[in-house]
Amino acid sequence: MPHCDTLILAGWCIPVEPHGLILTDHAIAISDGRIIDILPAADARRRYEAGVLVERPNHLLIPGLVNAHTHAAMTLFRGLADDLPLGRWLKEAIWPAEMRWVGAEMVRDGTRLAIAEMLLGGCTCFSDQYFFPEIVAETAVDMNMRAMVGTPVVEFPTPWAENATEYLDKGAELVHDRYADHPLISSCFAPHSTSSVSDKTFGDMRVMADQLDKRIQIHLHESATEIEDSVAATGMRPFERLERLGLANASLMAVHAVHLQDDEITRFAEAGVSITHCPRSNLKLADGIARTTDMRNAGICVALGTDGAGSNNVLDMLGEMRTAALLAKAQSGDASSLPAADALQMATLDGARALGLDEVIGSIKTGKAADLACIDLMHLNSQPVYDPASQLVYTVQPHQVQDVWIGGRHQVENGRLTHVDPVDILKRTAEWRQRIQTHRQQERP
Amino acid sequence: MPHCDTLILAGWCIPVEPHGLILTDHAIAISDGRIIDILPAADARRRYEAGVLVERPNHLLIPGLVNAHTHAAMTLFRGLADDLPLGRWLKEAIWPAEMRWVGAEMVRDGTRLAIAEMLLGGCTCFSDQYFFPEIVAETAVDMNMRAMVGTPVVEFPTPWAENATEYLDKGAELVHDRYADHPLISSCFAPHSTSSVSDKTFGDMRVMADQLDKRIQIHLHESATEIEDSVAATGMRPFERLERLGLANASLMAVHAVHLQDDEITRFAEAGVSITHCPRSNLKLADGIARTTDMRNAGICVALGTDGAGSNNVLDMLGEMRTAALLAKAQSGDASSLPAADALQMATLDGARALGLDEVIGSIKTGKAADLACIDLMHLNSQPVYDPASQLVYTVQPHQVQDVWIGGRHQVENGRLTHVDPVDILKRTAEWRQRIQTHRQQERP
Repeated sequence: MPHCDTLILAGWCIPVEPHGLILTDHAIAISDGRIIDILPAADARRRYEAGVLVERPNHLLIPGLVNAHTHAAMTLFRGLADDLPLGRWLKEAIWPAEMRWVGAEMVRDGTRLAIAEMLLGGCTCFSDQYFFPEIVAETAVDMNMRAMVGTPVVEFPTPWAENATEYLDKGAELVHDRYADHPLISSCFAPHSTSSVSDKTFGDMRVMADQLDKRIQIHLHESATEIEDSVAATGMRPFERLERLGLANASLMAVHAVHLQDDEITRFAEAGVSITHCPRSNLKLADGIARTTDMRNAGICVALGTDGAGSNNVLDMLGEMRTAALLAKAQSGDASSLPAADALQMATLDGARALGLDEVIGSIKTGKAADLACIDLMHLNSQPVYDPASQLVYTVQPHQVQDVWIGGRHQVENGRLTHVDPVDILKRTAEWRQRIQTHRQQERP
Repeated sequence: MPHCDTLILAGWCIPVEPHGLILTDHAIAISDGRIIDILPAADARRRYEAGVLVERPNHLLIPGLVNAHTHAAMTLFRGLADDLPLGRWLKEAIWPAEMRWVGAEMVRDGTRLAIAEMLLGGCTCFSDQYFFPEIVAETAVDMNMRAMVGTPVVEFPTPWAENATEYLDKGAELVHDRYADHPLISSCFAPHSTSSVSDKTFGDMRVMADQLDKRIQIHLHESATEIEDSVAATGMRPFERLERLGLANASLMAVHAVHLQDDEITRFAEAGVSITHCPRSNLKLADGIARTTDMRNAGICVALGTDGAGSNNVLDMLGEMRTAALLAKAQSGDASSLPAADALQMATLDGARALGLDEVIGSIKTGKAADLACIDLMHLNSQPVYDPASQLVYTVQPHQVQDVWIGGRHQVENGRLTHVDPVDILKRTAEWRQRIQTHRQQERP
């Protein structure tokens, strides 16, 4: 009788590959952190001798959710400044807070809070873009979280680096080199936006990214103002500038892309550029609604991200998936746009593709890492179940996430973190709140 | 030392009146189902001898949420048919299901499921529009839920009535008369839409509504098609037709109002017509995004509703409040539109106003009914707390609702229903699922 480390029996399973398939009463066998078999539960009970047997009869098993864009440490600024126009939000609240508070300790504590929240919401991988990326990587490893760590690039000094050269070099040394072959950590360059990076720096970054075989993640065409300012400053829209600089290719991850013209959608598709859709952030900052239906129809890989807690304010991929599915219908004027199965694919496999990790994660497939989330549908708000995909996308709350595994390790069990102490995280969060709040009150006239 | 039945001590309290006020460490004293005092916690401990003392130091106390539009019994059809265009959704899924299944037993079981879900999400009052309204009223009373029960009016036969006269008469007899002075139940007429009701019936209804002093709740300007069809059939847009029939006044509750021209917003405001905004339903059915900012700026009372679980699919007023706040920003292009405090007012006091219940509920005010919800902010996703209003609107999940009181009765305590057995509700729901699913499978070729 073959052995497996863990055998999960689930009432329903949506493997995402093949698209649209829903398995009932199936089992997933895991060994050495990888999925080794997917088979009917009754067969699995006969076939495998399991180290751990996990029975989840009223539950839906899905691939772990991939949060393709966030600024994890910003959880410590959650709710610090809401309901403000973008310019005032940045200039009066976020930038001053970052200049005052960002540091290794803040990034570590904020990232821990973020990872804990993401795990409890069924998210098993995130793509981050923030200062002190080496601390983000360390923290993710420490918590056994899968992460793509973006190393920031801007021209101006911040608490992490003085100038573009230092951003690039520190990123290469502290993250790209150090984590080159890590099983949980991948990395990319993360220039903030075209307005904050010079042509020369983009050129240097392109060379380094090619040498290191890394992707480039950038906020692109997020707001109408960003595009107007770019046209005024350079005569080009931001994407056109990246095309001319040789950055428009399959290693470019364009975050937001709210404002795309028809021909830009075609050019994104032809170049193989991926898009990370952050629907709630785009609504909250009044940026607008991205044309996800047109993008997907054109063949663009559209991933899903929460953005940072400064502009969302939760790292809730289930809610983000629901918002994406709902918005796509109103935006396209077609209630059949982005059906539940497609929204789930966006939040899993398409996220993995955008990050270049689809050989490893994004679907429940033999040989892939056992990054999984198991969701309890036996809650009043998710009953009755006619279609588990529909219930997942349109009804489930993060609280219903019963289990999460990353690389086969049980990270959330019965809705609780197994390897992380939430009391300690809450205590550290309260200390940061006290510091930040006291300082704000002192600054006020 | 004066006595009170219940004394609630909350870390934060947003009474909604006066607008924007946030109280810290305050107490609410309740006797005979009403709020008798609001005072600092330290004073309250000295002043009152409390029958029950409820201490909630990390919690936010708010008025119970008012779901101003739903079709409660449709929870049994939750997820039956998603991601379909409106026409196919109605004709192929919802209407056949209703003709086959709607009856007293289905409405009772579906309404119980809905009320249980709403209570667990902090909702203490709902305005319903469905068949067998007498069963909705009975069920609400049985569960101690506050409800405005709409009695349906259409011209065609359904399992509840044969023709318009019977709808009106049954409504009057079974609901409006029977519950005329009930402390928990109010009622209104609920014609489905202008397309399904004749001028004569609207005239008869107007007379009856005036005599009984009842409101009229109607789906109005929900979709572009509805308006085009009305213009084709009558030469008038639906609202104009209601104006000519003498129905455009302060007792008209217009549900949805997604498509309003500038002059219609002015006419709504001048007539005192209220609007119930159902943002998620409007997105999901691809109806569009209502102009809530313009409506509110014009002085229209805008309430908030979930709509039925056939088109949402959860009766989650916290989520609806968040969606309303986010959408308003993108729709108006201004990130300061519908700030958190305004979204909360929409979900509480403005809902009460639309229902004509603002003397009784909608804010935490001495003399009003003790309809309250207490929310635990000590969850990772709601920390840190700089502004409890922001956390409430942008971060809270229904699961964080710790307590709910209606008329002073503790209906949810520590996140659990106190007077309702969820196991029984889940069992009945499973039976309905079995029946409906089996029938569907038999019908398929």
